[in-house]
Order: sequence, then C-alpha cells, then structure tokens
Amino acid sequence: MSIPPDRPLPPLPGRLSDPGEDDARPGEVAVALPEAYDAGVFYIGRIGTPWTRRADCPRNARGSDAVCTIVVDDRWAAALTGVETCTHLLVLYWMDQARRDLVVQAPRHSSGPRGTFALRSPVRPNPIAASVVRLVGIDRTRLSVIGLDCLDGTPLVDIKPYFASTDAVGDAVVGWHAGQKS
Amino acid sequence: MSIPPDRPLPPLPGRLSDPGEDDARPGEVAVALPEAYDAGVFYIGRIGTPWTRRADCPRNARGSDAVCTIVVDDRWAAALTGVETCTHLLVLYWMDQARRDLVVQAPRHSSGPRGTFALRSPVRPNPIAASVVRLVGIDRTRLSVIGLDCLDGTPLVDIKPYFASTDAVGDAVVGWHAGQKS
Repeated sequence: MSIPPDRPLPPLPGRLSDPGEDDARPGEVAVALPEAYDAGVFYIGRIGTPWTRRADCPRNARGSDAVCTIVVDDRWAAALTGVETCTHLLVLYWMDQARRDLVVQAPRHSSGPRGTFALRSPVRPNPIAASVVRLVGIDRTRLSVIGLDCLDGTPLVDIKPYFASTDAVGDAVVGWHAGQKS
Repeated sequence: MSIPPDRPLPPLPGRLSDPGEDDARPGEVAVALPEAYDAGVFYIGRIGTPWTRRADCPRNARGSDAVCTIVVDDRWAAALTGVETCTHLLVLYWMDQARRDLVVQAPRHSSGPRGTFALRSPVRPNPIAASVVRLVGIDRTRLSVIGLDCLDGTPLVDIKPYFASTDAVGDAVVGWHAGQKS
C-alpha cells in the first residue's frame, strides 16, 4: 500500500465563538487552548436540518421528530454498504461554530455552572457531537434520519452502526440532571 | 474575549497503518484521502488499558470487564465538575494506529466485506471511537471505568454524560450482524 502523505491543516476561521455568545456568563471558566493540534479531521459530508440559527435548534435530539438529511461525499459512497440494514446509527458531527476553551459553562437551560464533560453542550475542547438517529431511508449517499438537533450545514465526521448490546444502557443516570425540571 | 490564534497541525506520522495490516484483504476497497484536513483535534488525555497489542484487545467493549483508566490533562481538570454524578459516560478517543482510506473492509471476525460506516472498526476516515462506559471511580483527573476495548495509551478526545433518554435504544438492530454468530 502506498503511504498517504502528510496533509496540511487549513487555518481555522479566526472566529471560534458564536455571535452574541462571546462573553462568558457568570461562573464560566475559560482556559488557554494548546498551542497546536494533535490530529486532523476530514469533513466527509454535510447534515441538512430545518434549523439555521442556534436559537432555533431543539434543546436535544429527542426535542424534534423532524426528518433530517445526511449527505455523504461521493468519495466515501462505498463505505455505506450495509448501512441500510441498520435501524439506528450513531452520527458524529463537528460543531464548527462553537468555542473550545470553556471548561465550566452555564448553559441557558441549566440550573448552574457545570463542567464541560458533564454537559452535552457544543462548546468543548473537541466540538464533536454524537447523536443516535433512526434511519428512515437511504438513497445512495443521502440518508434520511430522525434524531438530530444541529444547525443546517453542519459538517459530518462519522457514521457508525448502533449496537443495542454495547450502546444501550437504559438505566444510566446523570445525577445532576435527574433533580432538574427538564 | 480574546480570539484564540490559528493553530498549526503537526505532520502526521508517515505510517498510518498497523504493522502487518498494510495489505488489503480480498474484497477490501481503498480510496484516495482528501488533500487537506478540515479541522484539528486536541488530545485531552490518555486511556490506560491492559492491552498493548491490537490482537489482545477485546472484540468489543462488552468483551471485558477490566477496569480501565482515563487520565485527563490538568488543563481540562475543571471540566470534570459534575461528572462524578454520572453512572455512565460516552467516551470518544482517537485510534491513532488505524489507516483511514478503506471504504470497504473485511474484518477478521466478520462474514464478508462491509462498508466502513456499517462497522465499528477503528479503520475509518476519522478514527474516532465512541464507547459507553460505566464510571466506577474518579480521583481528580483520573477516572476508573469499565467498558473500553482500546490499546493502552490511546489518546482521549472527549467525555460526555450518557443520557438514557436520548442515547439508549434497546431495540435497535444491525441487520447484517443479527444473522451472524457472534
């Protein structure tokens, strides 16, 4: 096999933050980001949703039964072979509008500041979202799914089959959340 | 807020493949990778496991009840606030030993070639693994968890709280797998 050459990373856009969300809320804590990246991500497609502003997105993936569209780039078309046999998929996508330097956050809908790793907020060191979706149709590189909550045009980074045997834990508890009004 | 500067991406190691796994197996299909990365990942910690060779790793995360260790870099310590209230976490890590160019693969334990997006193989365009783990202990930046199957020293990229309400789908089916001996 020929060894793929090293690949350059294009510069990030200067703006890492959401317009209007630049200012930390009370209790929020930011850190200095590392000086360099350790690895590179390829965008492998795009996600189409009804939501074009962050404020319009559902609060979580069960907040809407809208059918969303995942369009995989032609380069990866053959990688979808067999996906049609799955009822559910784990979709990873890149929340490219989110800042990455907050370690403690006060989300609008939360009762107080929480650590980033205790939240599903898009704001995190690596803004990778993971959503379980139901596959409702597939037409070559175009998947119709239910269960996404992201902005229209969000970059896709991975699709995985969802295995109930390893991925489903029905009695899992997030303690800080269990006591909140949802 | 000050805007973080663009960050350079260090070159990838030339070897993107596992020793001894360079040669495609019958039915496997590789594609040319894109010329550049679209985004950059920070490694935020390391995962300690009992497995130092890929052949020793369990076939999936339920294949072992070994207690593994996640050590988060000090920079992100405050981001763990509240994680101790979670029974289960979704852990994302970077399978840095895996090649990224296969779209159809014939895993050793599978009945035939399958598309990469129908498999949980480490070999994929973006080698991000997602595993649901049970949290058994936490000591500052050191988490003890059950449910990982990766190599010792694997780079950590994210930790998320696992919400049964959105992440658990007990009746999900992977059709191609359902007919196989597991």
